Amino acid sequence: MRRAEVIDVDRRLQPLVDQMVAFVTDGGKRLRPEFLWCGWIAVEPAGAGGDEGSIYQLACALELLQAFALIHDDVIDRSDQRRGRPSTHRAIAGRHADARWAGDSDHYGVSIAVLLGDLALAWADDQFTAAAQALGALDRALPVWRAMRTEVLAGQLLDVTAAVHESGDPAAQASDAMRINRYKTAAYTVERPLQLGSVVADGSAETVAALRRYGADVGVAFQLRDDLLGVFGDPRVTGKPAGGDLIEGKRTLLLANARAALADQPRLLSNLDAGVGSAAADVSELADVIARTGAPERLERRIDELVTSAVQALDRRSADGRPAVTDAARARLTELASAATDRRQ
Amino acid sequence: MRRAEVIDVDRRLQPLVDQMVAFVTDGGKRLRPEFLWCGWIAVEPAGAGGDEGSIYQLACALELLQAFALIHDDVIDRSDQRRGRPSTHRAIAGRHADARWAGDSDHYGVSIAVLLGDLALAWADDQFTAAAQALGALDRALPVWRAMRTEVLAGQLLDVTAAVHESGDPAAQASDAMRINRYKTAAYTVERPLQLGSVVADGSAETVAALRRYGADVGVAFQLRDDLLGVFGDPRVTGKPAGGDLIEGKRTLLLANARAALADQPRLLSNLDAGVGSAAADVSELADVIARTGAPERLERRIDELVTSAVQALDRRSADGRPAVTDAARARLTELASAATDRRQ
Repeated sequence: MRRAEVIDVDRRLQPLVDQMVAFVTDGGKRLRPEFLWCGWIAVEPAGAGGDEGSIYQLACALELLQAFALIHDDVIDRSDQRRGRPSTHRAIAGRHADARWAGDSDHYGVSIAVLLGDLALAWADDQFTAAAQALGALDRALPVWRAMRTEVLAGQLLDVTAAVHESGDPAAQASDAMRINRYKTAAYTVERPLQLGSVVADGSAETVAALRRYGADVGVAFQLRDDLLGVFGDPRVTGKPAGGDLIEGKRTLLLANARAALADQPRLLSNLDAGVGSAAADVSELADVIARTGAPERLERRIDELVTSAVQALDRRSADGRPAVTDAARARLTELASAATDRRQ
Repeated sequence: MRRAEVIDVDRRLQPLVDQMVAFVTDGGKRLRPEFLWCGWIAVEPAGAGGDEGSIYQLACALELLQAFALIHDDVIDRSDQRRGRPSTHRAIAGRHADARWAGDSDHYGVSIAVLLGDLALAWADDQFTAAAQALGALDRALPVWRAMRTEVLAGQLLDVTAAVHESGDPAAQASDAMRINRYKTAAYTVERPLQLGSVVADGSAETVAALRRYGADVGVAFQLRDDLLGVFGDPRVTGKPAGGDLIEGKRTLLLANARAALADQPRLLSNLDAGVGSAAADVSELADVIARTGAPERLERRIDELVTSAVQALDRRSADGRPAVTDAARARLTELASAATDRRQ
């Protein structure tokens, strides 16, 4: 196990590495492994007869990559909670403070979290390469893996950058939000894992194209559901604070649409703008303002449309008239489209 | 070029990615590429006849990995300068402040620097895999690359952790400092790049062993020179602030040895301890105290011994009586042993 390599350097590193490993093993929706698996079984016969152990290892690579992204995201977004527990940098800072170690607890928490995220990224790469080699699919899988890492980082860079270049124009905000959704979430969570599973199984161009079409749509719908939960979600179910997106001042499509709808109500708009991102704001009041604009219903309709078009893409046929996607994959992906977009956490 | 992949996501990301690319292309001592090359030419005939383009790509992977490590290190160490210019997070924070963008400049600088470091790590892996594949040496090179990344991160984790567990005991400090030197610098800067070059060239076990012995010694000596420069170096030459290690409160072997020498002078010891890591301290006075302990001379002698034993390792012979390392590599490595350990920057 890779854990031992670090602990061999110094025993004192054990609780730190354990913190990162626990993050990977103890929680999360396992969406990327699910979509990877669906991409794999979408292809016949590779998905039916192949090496399941290596697909499992590839799934571990995706979960490590996700751990890396979330640990660093939480540092960048200064999020205190994740999956109903303290975020990694907060947990480490808390341990520092409790033990009364030397120095600044918060900076220690951030420093260790940056390094644990780095370790997760390095290990994700190692798992990916080992699994793809074992499957004899390294050359096919590499371009997908590369794109996935670059896209999630570019999406995150764009998220941080767009926030400081805020123009106030709802149309520009909506376009930024959709671009961030596309790179940071849709490609990374659904489209690329599906593509990875299907190219590893040596799927045809039609199979890969159908899955990517489905993935892009479900991925965006997944993020729009996240936007709604970030404002209206139940913190006991989501594991994140109530109105978390409002507290963080996250520029979502939901917020951009609500702001556009308030164009002729300048007083309400400026109240909303003053409250979003402010620690002093009453988040349930802000949520009410957003609800009354009708923006949530618009988002619900958009989610429905995206899920419908996604599921239709699975009905595509190859040039020889056979279904592009196996029945087993189609059934599971149809379920997942609903589960990923009609959820409470 | 990978740069385009990010800029295609959004034009606004161009100056950020350029900042990271400039960090890789504009500076640094190129030590890792030098040692990689020496490992490659240490083997006959692979080093003589092989694919130089792919070795160059492998060198780029090492430089990207180093960019990643330094960008994150500077965030963690809160260093304002690197290579005579503002460190990455400071440069980005400065641009934010100058342009009067929204939000907190310092946090923006740290956030973007974390992500640019991540991007450098992801790209380092991509370059490594492509180069090692092109050289037909992926299976041989992978264990070295994996160890290198895990070690540099474990060394950095240990560095951050040892700082908060400070016992005050000079012997424990010296042992921590040497362990950090071994993982964070020696292996990563000299031993592993040499090993990588030689395993890619399919060197014999004797060749690889001789190079690793050399690398471990020169690597530690390199770090001990860094310790001396961190206290006594000329900032106009080093590109780092005068007495930078004292300002940062870095726990080096030099400091541990100086503290041990002051065991029977409690007043001087407590003055030194109060000054190291304090922004208000007079660093030239602290440097004088350290100089008078004789610790710098001890370090100079240790550097000499390490360089001697390193160069001797290059004289080893294989079982068949032939030199383990080619003459060309031996000549260059003998020069480099001095250059890396007897330098002013």
